[in-house]
Amino acid sequence: MQAPTESPAFRTRFVLIQTSHAGNVGAAARAMKVMGFDDLVLVQPRWANVLRRQETIERASGANDVLDKARIVETLDEALDGMTHLCATAMTPRDFGPPTRAPREHFAQLVQSATPETGAQGVAFLFGSERFGMRNEDVYRCHTCLSIPTNPQFGSLNLGAALQVIAYEWRQALGAYPVQEATAPPVRADAAQVAGMLAHLEQALVAVDFLDPAAPKKLMPRLNALFNRAGLTQEEIHILRGVAKAMLETAEKARR
Amino acid sequence: MQAPTESPAFRTRFVLIQTSHAGNVGAAARAMKVMGFDDLVLVQPRWANVLRRQETIERASGANDVLDKARIVETLDEALDGMTHLCATAMTPRDFGPPTRAPREHFAQLVQSATPETGAQGVAFLFGSERFGMRNEDVYRCHTCLSIPTNPQFGSLNLGAALQVIAYEWRQALGAYPVQEATAPPVRADAAQVAGMLAHLEQALVAVDFLDPAAPKKLMPRLNALFNRAGLTQEEIHILRGVAKAMLETAEKARR
Repeated sequence: MQAPTESPAFRTRFVLIQTSHAGNVGAAARAMKVMGFDDLVLVQPRWANVLRRQETIERASGANDVLDKARIVETLDEALDGMTHLCATAMTPRDFGPPTRAPREHFAQLVQSATPETGAQGVAFLFGSERFGMRNEDVYRCHTCLSIPTNPQFGSLNLGAALQVIAYEWRQALGAYPVQEATAPPVRADAAQVAGMLAHLEQALVAVDFLDPAAPKKLMPRLNALFNRAGLTQEEIHILRGVAKAMLETAEKARR
Repeated sequence: MQAPTESPAFRTRFVLIQTSHAGNVGAAARAMKVMGFDDLVLVQPRWANVLRRQETIERASGANDVLDKARIVETLDEALDGMTHLCATAMTPRDFGPPTRAPREHFAQLVQSATPETGAQGVAFLFGSERFGMRNEDVYRCHTCLSIPTNPQFGSLNLGAALQVIAYEWRQALGAYPVQEATAPPVRADAAQVAGMLAHLEQALVAVDFLDPAAPKKLMPRLNALFNRAGLTQEEIHILRGVAKAMLETAEKARR
């Protein structure tokens, strides 16, 4: 199965600024690839060889192609060539800056506002360093400040986890990958099949002396409600009819 | 600001089965806390002392209360007391099992179907081991198999990253935390203020000999369109009028 080609209206880049932990660079590559993105740029990472460090490669867990393609640059300007819409990810309040938006809401707007007239957008997601976040001057040039809605008492998202949520939301907004059904779709039993099974089961319940036909109370309607709630499949009808049959046969033997 | 109290209709638990990496347990605790959840149960983790290992505590990054509250148990049964709705997280296709659903779609349904009559639900999210995923028999007892929609060529989500996405989606479904606006909301300029500023700017552009009033072409309408697209604030009107004033004063000096 093919990955959905990225929407022609958007190119996507992830920019990590002054990242200190190699593990986070690896986790970022993995999180991107899992959501079908591959354009990673590092601005002044702590380790010049971060793309080849063991911890990076371990945490990338197979996303080596993203690491191979990644660029390391000295300035944010170099990281942003061709990008037209900049999203900061910054949690700390500032006096001034672009409007703060939840990713889901902002991405829906961004995708909706893309028309042939607006031209192709280059969307960059900027992530600051683990310890200091983003510098004010880097936030100021962004169009939006994305804020993942978190526990107000504990908003400390790991860099890789934050990038995973953003990449996931952006992929959902661009048109998500389809869920791969792991099992064959069940064939639902229709009302007649359910009624037939219930009649069969009723005989069996009488035969094993659980149901007294003279005082049935509400047993069968109760079982009917239970099976309706479960939404039976045809296969399950066969199973339940098999059980009823075995009950009837056993009762027959018991009567001999 | 208070954390939103968990919806009374749902209690939430995260269950990690046979987790091998201490770092992932710490990352799980952090991911949970960030989304306001705190009920973590470990079934047969590789390390008996995993809740107190250095790597766990480092990756938990302050979510110590979640680790302190966490339970370690021997069997999945013990982990599931009081839980009524079990969500497997399993990527590998199986011949048989609960229906596969994308988290967003499933959670919307789950929340929507909660009525006073259905009673309080205990929702458990089950995560298998890093190397082997979930055992068939553990998947079979679940009501749903959640599948995060990922790149079909690379669906390898890290345990902590997967848990972060699930916790985020579940929190969004329960009613997300509000986004904290980092800056004061801007006051938009009205049309009269924009027109006044443009008239001021027009004088200035004439004064610096950029605009020829005899052949204005479409300069002012173009600038008008640009400023309309930007959606000017009152503060920006003041800035632009300040610029116009300075241009006019400089032009006045130049004429002397």
